[in-house]
Amino acid sequence: MRTVDLIQKKRNGGELTSRELSFLVDGYSRGDIPDYQMSAWAMAVYFQGMSARETAELTLAMARSGDQVDLSPIHGIKVDKHSTGGVGDKTTLIIGPLVASLGIPVAKMSGRGLGHTGGTIDKLESIPGFRTELSQEQFFAQVNGIGLAVIGQSGNITPADKKLYGLRDVTATVESIPLIASSVMSKKIAAGADAIVLDVKTGGGAFMKTAADAEALAKAMVDIGTEVGRQTSAIISDMDQPLGFAIGNALEVREAIATLRGEGPSDLTELCLALSAHMVVLGGQAPDLAAAEAMLRERLASGAALDKFRAFVAAQGGDSSVADDPDRLPQAAAIIEVTARRSGYVQRIDAEELGLAAMLLGAGRETKDAVIDYAVGLTISRKVGERVEAGDPVALLHARADDGTARQVAERTRDAFVIGEEAPAMQPLLLSVVTAAGVQRLSGS
Amino acid sequence: MRTVDLIQKKRNGGELTSRELSFLVDGYSRGDIPDYQMSAWAMAVYFQGMSARETAELTLAMARSGDQVDLSPIHGIKVDKHSTGGVGDKTTLIIGPLVASLGIPVAKMSGRGLGHTGGTIDKLESIPGFRTELSQEQFFAQVNGIGLAVIGQSGNITPADKKLYGLRDVTATVESIPLIASSVMSKKIAAGADAIVLDVKTGGGAFMKTAADAEALAKAMVDIGTEVGRQTSAIISDMDQPLGFAIGNALEVREAIATLRGEGPSDLTELCLALSAHMVVLGGQAPDLAAAEAMLRERLASGAALDKFRAFVAAQGGDSSVADDPDRLPQAAAIIEVTARRSGYVQRIDAEELGLAAMLLGAGRETKDAVIDYAVGLTISRKVGERVEAGDPVALLHARADDGTARQVAERTRDAFVIGEEAPAMQPLLLSVVTAAGVQRLSGS
Repeated sequence: MRTVDLIQKKRNGGELTSRELSFLVDGYSRGDIPDYQMSAWAMAVYFQGMSARETAELTLAMARSGDQVDLSPIHGIKVDKHSTGGVGDKTTLIIGPLVASLGIPVAKMSGRGLGHTGGTIDKLESIPGFRTELSQEQFFAQVNGIGLAVIGQSGNITPADKKLYGLRDVTATVESIPLIASSVMSKKIAAGADAIVLDVKTGGGAFMKTAADAEALAKAMVDIGTEVGRQTSAIISDMDQPLGFAIGNALEVREAIATLRGEGPSDLTELCLALSAHMVVLGGQAPDLAAAEAMLRERLASGAALDKFRAFVAAQGGDSSVADDPDRLPQAAAIIEVTARRSGYVQRIDAEELGLAAMLLGAGRETKDAVIDYAVGLTISRKVGERVEAGDPVALLHARADDGTARQVAERTRDAFVIGEEAPAMQPLLLSVVTAAGVQRLSGS
Repeated sequence: MRTVDLIQKKRNGGELTSRELSFLVDGYSRGDIPDYQMSAWAMAVYFQGMSARETAELTLAMARSGDQVDLSPIHGIKVDKHSTGGVGDKTTLIIGPLVASLGIPVAKMSGRGLGHTGGTIDKLESIPGFRTELSQEQFFAQVNGIGLAVIGQSGNITPADKKLYGLRDVTATVESIPLIASSVMSKKIAAGADAIVLDVKTGGGAFMKTAADAEALAKAMVDIGTEVGRQTSAIISDMDQPLGFAIGNALEVREAIATLRGEGPSDLTELCLALSAHMVVLGGQAPDLAAAEAMLRERLASGAALDKFRAFVAAQGGDSSVADDPDRLPQAAAIIEVTARRSGYVQRIDAEELGLAAMLLGAGRETKDAVIDYAVGLTISRKVGERVEAGDPVALLHARADDGTARQVAERTRDAFVIGEEAPAMQPLLLSVVTAAGVQRLSGS
């Protein structure tokens, strides 16, 4: 088998066989196939796409390229959740305890990663004492005991995907739906999930700018799951503004606690309930989504979800009293009010800009070795569609000090609020659900 | 400027500017831009193409990447000729003396290269004593003196093209018309030609399988010439069988001599006259193609073209008596007859197979250091459309010995003749002419 022939076959619109895809992925992993051939192949895929079967086989080849986690010591159906990213995305902090409170085992391995704010692991570590480095035995025992554990991703998961993603990033081959889908799914499959629920964002602040693209990506990922025998569902949601109000590690934990208490922002609560309901159904704990959602609402109202959060924090060495007294979380020294530049209706909130603002305050990592300040970030006080008058507060910065940096960030934050004369047409949060059965539109869009 | 942005621009169908193309070519030449970005860009070009302006600017950037030959010490309009390759292509040996006999200066730098038979340089070196290593001063003086000199290509011509071609070869990005066109034209422009005549082959034995593709390539090359101020014409010819009868170095010199004497194969003579007529017109020595062709025919009939060949061979140290006694050229020890497998009409002669046969006999180089045997090769005695009876001779092998290798080559040669019941529909040799004015079809095809 010659790599150049496989590139040519894809270039000409052919479908690579399982053997051919393994040859590419394994050869690239080992370093036998050079970057320049892999990038040409990726560009050919960008133009010619891949069939559902091809995409699934590429995914499996990448899942097999490194360690594959065996979750069989954990009882029950392990349902994993993945979000395609988003500023202020604290869903894992809420969904974990919520579905665990209904008996769905949550064995989550999560990354730190680079970004505007920390990853789930960083957010949890803003709770005093919280440890994310458990041994595999401790991890399994905790999930079997209380139903929930979150640890940092260790080992060598999908090295082929890491290497290929790095190459795609510098060769303008990121924006290929089958390549994005196989990258996400290879990691979930290698991490051992039995079933997968995907949270796919669309809109100005998301990677997939249109609902149609987001649906195509969701469909590609659901198809992979179906092909490889892991039930997969996806929810497409709008991301034309941040989810909830808080951006920043401890600030997001505080918002997650409020949500588990039943007092969270409505958009965040709605998305968490929808994702959780799919997990509960895939985990076999409810016959349908309506039943699952009713059970989940009861868990929030009864305090059972927050109880699970307390037990989870305590099991991993954290101060579980934060659940009742969130002021015990790290707090920033300076609070700076950001006011509206003009009167009118909030048309759009540039989530990307707010994420950047949070990073500039110290909430995220620009480089791998940067140290995160858990306390800093920002909370918005107006959302899209609300009326403001010039000078009204639209956000609060939580900064280390009221200094020049903070003032600059305040200006950026102010500019992220696009205010206009007319009340904007409101877009529903949840747009559609994609399952093996097809696409179900949740709104008229 | 970032390379990834330029790849993305091309991927999205954009047109790169002159500055952007120079950034890519210069950066790649210097090694600042890695292979993996250049191959992704080449694949994007494969799918999105390039505009005429873009192709011309890529060509100029590659022409400028190395030495640029200054032919100004040579008097007159320097017209160069390029063939897109073909088995048994000895046109340069004929056209050089022929047009030089009409006062067109021919200052040819030619490669050795790999292939079925040697390059023009190797063919000339099969003449006893012939030297192709002249100094630049000797080269210019000889062209100004007798109108014709051929030397081996030296120096560092279009290194960016060499590097890019090597990369395209292993990344399935060869078959892109703008990339092929810019590769050919960058070399011609760097070699200093004022005007260029292109011999573009089409058909089963050629790189461009269809006349439409060959015309598109020709048009792209003519457009480049027009954009950069070098008048360019192209002739598209059919290559469903070898040109002439001979394949092999000394065998082709012998056939060239016969053609200069006016006794050559009709297809070879016809193509050489057509290409030469375009050179004579571009070189300003005739008002139109008809006048040019009449002048050229007179040069063949009067012996003036053969005289020019004699003077040329003598000037470069060769035994010019070969022009009158071709038996002085190297001759192979063994002549082996290849006979027709069945009775019928010759439908097709697989030129690629015959080229391979010649190489197996020792006429070409598989590797850069292989030594060529000037004497060996083959001559065919039947062409497409002719009637043969089973057992009739269709070709003669000229081999080192009547051994196992020769016997195997004889079988391959026999198989290269496809014989069928019906007389095949005959295709004309010359299909169309492409100039800045447009495409002119020479036949009903």
